[in-house]
Amino acid sequence: MKTSLLTIGDEICIGQIINTNAAWIAQKLSQIGIRVHAHSVVGDEISEIISETDRLLKLSDVIIITGGLGPTHDDRTKEALCLYLNDALELHPETLEYLKHYYQTRNRVFGKRQQSQALLPKKAFILQNNVGTAPGMAWILPNQKRIYSLPGVPAEMKFLMENQILPELSELQEKSGNFTLHKTLLTTGIAESDLADQIGDVSQFLESDSLAFLPSASGVRLRITVQRKTKKEALDRVSEIESILRQKASRWIFGEENETLAESLGKLLKSKKLTLSTAESCTGGMISSQITDISGSSEYFLGGVVAYSNELKTKILKVPQALIHEHGAVSKAVVEAMAIGACQEFQSDTSIAVSGISGPKGGSPDKPIGTTWIAVALRNPSNQTIQVESKLFQFGTNTRSLNRERAASAAIVMLIQKLTNL
Amino acid sequence: MKTSLLTIGDEICIGQIINTNAAWIAQKLSQIGIRVHAHSVVGDEISEIISETDRLLKLSDVIIITGGLGPTHDDRTKEALCLYLNDALELHPETLEYLKHYYQTRNRVFGKRQQSQALLPKKAFILQNNVGTAPGMAWILPNQKRIYSLPGVPAEMKFLMENQILPELSELQEKSGNFTLHKTLLTTGIAESDLADQIGDVSQFLESDSLAFLPSASGVRLRITVQRKTKKEALDRVSEIESILRQKASRWIFGEENETLAESLGKLLKSKKLTLSTAESCTGGMISSQITDISGSSEYFLGGVVAYSNELKTKILKVPQALIHEHGAVSKAVVEAMAIGACQEFQSDTSIAVSGISGPKGGSPDKPIGTTWIAVALRNPSNQTIQVESKLFQFGTNTRSLNRERAASAAIVMLIQKLTNL
Repeated sequence: MKTSLLTIGDEICIGQIINTNAAWIAQKLSQIGIRVHAHSVVGDEISEIISETDRLLKLSDVIIITGGLGPTHDDRTKEALCLYLNDALELHPETLEYLKHYYQTRNRVFGKRQQSQALLPKKAFILQNNVGTAPGMAWILPNQKRIYSLPGVPAEMKFLMENQILPELSELQEKSGNFTLHKTLLTTGIAESDLADQIGDVSQFLESDSLAFLPSASGVRLRITVQRKTKKEALDRVSEIESILRQKASRWIFGEENETLAESLGKLLKSKKLTLSTAESCTGGMISSQITDISGSSEYFLGGVVAYSNELKTKILKVPQALIHEHGAVSKAVVEAMAIGACQEFQSDTSIAVSGISGPKGGSPDKPIGTTWIAVALRNPSNQTIQVESKLFQFGTNTRSLNRERAASAAIVMLIQKLTNL
Repeated sequence: MKTSLLTIGDEICIGQIINTNAAWIAQKLSQIGIRVHAHSVVGDEISEIISETDRLLKLSDVIIITGGLGPTHDDRTKEALCLYLNDALELHPETLEYLKHYYQTRNRVFGKRQQSQALLPKKAFILQNNVGTAPGMAWILPNQKRIYSLPGVPAEMKFLMENQILPELSELQEKSGNFTLHKTLLTTGIAESDLADQIGDVSQFLESDSLAFLPSASGVRLRITVQRKTKKEALDRVSEIESILRQKASRWIFGEENETLAESLGKLLKSKKLTLSTAESCTGGMISSQITDISGSSEYFLGGVVAYSNELKTKILKVPQALIHEHGAVSKAVVEAMAIGACQEFQSDTSIAVSGISGPKGGSPDKPIGTTWIAVALRNPSNQTIQVESKLFQFGTNTRSLNRERAASAAIVMLIQKLTNL
């Protein structure tokens, strides 16, 4: 069941809004074994909506269209689809009743403009939108191809997808005997090409299936894709490939699917019942922000300090002034003292400390921009002594935000690796 | 100059990654007067890359393609474009040298796979990528249409766009004799309709130009759009309109264009020679992270504490335990004590403090999820006393990350407003 997505709206075209709807829909479809093979975006122009629908319909069995269903003059999807499908609008009594009630209970005017949302195409199935005012529409064409048209407001689109379209497509997909399944393994600490060498000749174990290498800031993701007749066959085959990959690259695999580094670290800390604190300089709170973005992080994260000035490093983390004076703030001695200071001052079992030069200013010949020291500390549960280890990174870019992101990822990875090998 | 964007990658197709590249590029193009009229996304299939490039090229003068330039077997853009454009790969000596140096300085293997990134199309102009390993490519076709192909890693794509493609297209656009210029002024602390009243009848000063009111989380943005034959005429006209708007609404205008709130705050702090510290609970370092993402922030940002646990609020920020016990951590009394504590302990002139319930767990009937107290403190330069003011926000969503982002923005806005009216 080839499926494509069409997003309609000038605001998406000119980049004022990021197209999160398309990603959400594609992900949900992929979870029920349907592969989206094309997305596209056009503005609110009738001719463009028609020509793009026509093109995608030739390539696909199902098109899901979002956007352009509002009540104002720049919402033209309904009109365009009626023209294209030789359909016509008529008053839909249930929708009219629903809208009347919707506006009245909110004390909002229910005038001509609002009523126009009850004018709906005769040939379409109407999908009632219980969380907004624009209903969804579904056309089943004589050749059994389907066109769905949904509002662009994310909550309304999601409501209709979850309650109507996903169950419907899932049933169709299972009947079709063609099940696509993805699984992603997350690696870190190894470059894309080195990982490819480590895994070797993929044709040896992939057969008709596929493996993609997807680099990201935190590391390379390995995505397995399998197509089988049934879900069970697909699941079995995915786990075969997964176990081969885990044999070849276990050292670098730290998580699965869309898990973030901070989530992986959180799981490890929880399972080992350890607490964490952070001492950040160049990352400026990015690490603690990522860690606290995980619900439930208060179970293991006690807090952190952003010690941007040297005075704060001394005052809060008790880094001796002499150490900073002698080695500079970006040094092994200082970053280790920061990590130990965090463990001691915040009474945590583990800590992460970072000190680096993010740029674009502040580099020197022996400490160029991107030079970053990272330390992780771990309290010995038996005698309470604190072990610390540190590592020097050269992120080698002049882009401040990139150096910071890389430092934050590398720091979390360092603690993940330390805890994984405990 | 009709422009379209083509994003290549299975990971975007299946929704594993949100297509932020397309939005970023479209926005940058719109700033230099170029309107993107279509985006599309296809997977890593040679035939699909070719047919989609062909289709978009028929509709457009310029196509910007991102993705599929890595060194592994699932990166096929280069191959597809060579087939489509009847081009062939050859070794590009400068790129080979660059890559050798890139891998060697990082102590990474430089083998056949790595070298393959120096195999580049003969007919293309090579755009050197100083922040990664995949160069960009530009073809200028006999009919003067252009195809750009860039890596999909956001930082690398941005580097090539900013350093090569945007300046090039901007020049072309200027020569075309049809220059659209946008300028956006950022306001805060005033509602859309009040701002409209303040500005009055726009027809008095706009003539053929236009002004849009765009509400956002941080305030209403005023977008001026002007079309003239030359860039100079457009710039002159924009500054005429800008100065009229600034006369009418100076009190609320705090920044321009895509300036972030943290940048605006940084400018204000610098101009007033004030230092800042932060005390964050629910935002977990997000505010300090945004502030330190600005180059030069060490001039005014001293540091901050992420006081996630109550113990840390007491230990580092000297918030009396009794206060937390009596009012709870999410309260006016505690957030004000946190702000004062930050000013005192970190010896800063100003501070921001946040304490709230981000969710999805932890709400209660009188403090539902999204309840957030924010305080800003300011040291009186004459007598060193610290003034503090605080405000209660109800962000009203169940989404942790959204509540955190809104809290971070609201907190920075609060200090901006305080400093603007100094």
